[in-house]
Amino acid sequence: MADVVEIAAMRRALELATRGPRSRNPQVGCVLLSPSGEVLAEGWHRGAGTAHAEVDALSKLPEGGARGATAVVSLEPCNHVGRTGPCAVALIEAGVSRVVFALADPGEHSSGGAERLRSAGVDVEGGVLEAEAREFLAPWLAARALGRPHVTVKWAQSLDGRAAAADGTSQWITGPEARADVHRRRAEADAIVVGTGTVLADDPALTARDGDDLFPRQPVPVVLGSAPVPAGARVRAHPRALLAYPTRELGAVLDDLFDRGLQRVFVEGGPTLASAFVSAGFADRILTYIAPTLIGGPRTALTDVGVPTIADQHRLSVDALQRLGSDLLVVARPLPESESH
Amino acid sequence: MADVVEIAAMRRALELATRGPRSRNPQVGCVLLSPSGEVLAEGWHRGAGTAHAEVDALSKLPEGGARGATAVVSLEPCNHVGRTGPCAVALIEAGVSRVVFALADPGEHSSGGAERLRSAGVDVEGGVLEAEAREFLAPWLAARALGRPHVTVKWAQSLDGRAAAADGTSQWITGPEARADVHRRRAEADAIVVGTGTVLADDPALTARDGDDLFPRQPVPVVLGSAPVPAGARVRAHPRALLAYPTRELGAVLDDLFDRGLQRVFVEGGPTLASAFVSAGFADRILTYIAPTLIGGPRTALTDVGVPTIADQHRLSVDALQRLGSDLLVVARPLPESESH
Repeated sequence: MADVVEIAAMRRALELATRGPRSRNPQVGCVLLSPSGEVLAEGWHRGAGTAHAEVDALSKLPEGGARGATAVVSLEPCNHVGRTGPCAVALIEAGVSRVVFALADPGEHSSGGAERLRSAGVDVEGGVLEAEAREFLAPWLAARALGRPHVTVKWAQSLDGRAAAADGTSQWITGPEARADVHRRRAEADAIVVGTGTVLADDPALTARDGDDLFPRQPVPVVLGSAPVPAGARVRAHPRALLAYPTRELGAVLDDLFDRGLQRVFVEGGPTLASAFVSAGFADRILTYIAPTLIGGPRTALTDVGVPTIADQHRLSVDALQRLGSDLLVVARPLPESESH
Repeated sequence: MADVVEIAAMRRALELATRGPRSRNPQVGCVLLSPSGEVLAEGWHRGAGTAHAEVDALSKLPEGGARGATAVVSLEPCNHVGRTGPCAVALIEAGVSRVVFALADPGEHSSGGAERLRSAGVDVEGGVLEAEAREFLAPWLAARALGRPHVTVKWAQSLDGRAAAADGTSQWITGPEARADVHRRRAEADAIVVGTGTVLADDPALTARDGDDLFPRQPVPVVLGSAPVPAGARVRAHPRALLAYPTRELGAVLDDLFDRGLQRVFVEGGPTLASAFVSAGFADRILTYIAPTLIGGPRTALTDVGVPTIADQHRLSVDALQRLGSDLLVVARPLPESESH
């Protein structure tokens, strides 16, 4: 069992982890303790292509300085030969006698580090402050499992599925409680994505606001589409620098966002873009804000989502129903293909 | 205070009322009691143009036979001069000394009967078994207040407001619980209305079914539109005779249904007809069954509802949200114009 010194070192390792950038690689921290419990060195991962946290910490000690030491790491030491060599081997070669980690490595190619350490005679203990580590790494874990950022697609609509009246007017269909909920969710996202059509039509700020104030955390604004973003567009005054992709190839865009460490993407519209994410199977979570009103006419909140016949409909599972003022929020996710027929 | 004999007589009057047909006029029953509490005569209203219940009962007695009697009536005796003369005057002229009634007459032109009786020295007591009478007459009271049948418009849709996939296939969007709920509600309606397009496309039976069995009470099937209903259409095998109106003039149709005593109308579609009822302001209650699925494409559950600009949207008030299996039912009604902006 990990003792109080090791648990304190794990808290420190989790703190060190946050110093690294979000990227395709997980943020990891490491503390090396002497047999008597003193901190010998600290390390953290600075992003793809640089040393992992364990190697970073070891590099701060002279040759032989980690012999008999305990390595406290926020993620199971890796076992794969990537650009940096397996950390498990580096720890073994450095003579570390005990390894404490928080979370098992979920990677297909990188896991097995604990096993490898054990077969080299190292004492290994996992699961120390695991819940904290899992919460901290949740966005990375979700994106890691998907192989791309986790995508939430949000839209507001009338009960009959319209986003605007025939002439394009739409402010406001939903009420202030629903709009405040959207802003809270924006603040939890890493990126907020709209199409150029929405920028040109609505000139949104794409900030996450608490009333008139900005939330401390702001998503990166991302605009997709071939039309240029006007010089005076409000999104250009966003506290985070704008990413503009002159493309609608969503897979490529998500890939690039993932490379940039943007693990939670919030897609806000308009109808064409939301429909493209749904069609492509990239909508991991769907937020539909429904206002109690009927509008009819041509301006549907979704356009074509690739359903020529009813057997192809996109069946959802409803995770939550919430009343927000006089509006209704439906939180759903796609049913696995096998359960949808 | 009414005594047990009068209360028993009121129950009998409510029973007699059901013998009359539903029509624009309320169903009313009347029992005449002698001063010692014996039943002298019974009467009920047989529909517009015929004697009211009180006059019907009086007509069964010889001249002077109601002198000093108590008239027990399920609705306040009327005070208007229609085709039949005011009942209040008939009772006064017959020498009735006491009148007991259940429900006050809500009619603008017919009320005031109790007042008129009192000023002629008759002892009058209202409110006896009022709740029972109100429940029995609820459909008539609602229709009376509207000046036409009460209309419920129902449709089923995907979360994004579609009634079918692009190729027209739609079975099944909603699940068995939602469909069973629709059948229960059909059984409570007096008429079930569809357009000829729905008859030609879906050939619905328009019966109210409990599983494979018919409910004892069946709504009258009503088809609107200029296309003829095919000889072999399933709706022609309905236990109630089909009413077919080769028109889309909804006001005229509702007027005729009201004349026929059909006070609760259930409009089931399709999209064009539902939209026409919403546009015209004839949708008193809206039932939207929402399936957790996305369909997109052109086949919206509502088409045009006369909303050129957002200020004209049809704002609703949500009376109930209900989960039915994996579907959601939204029960709503139009917000009064003054509250919708």
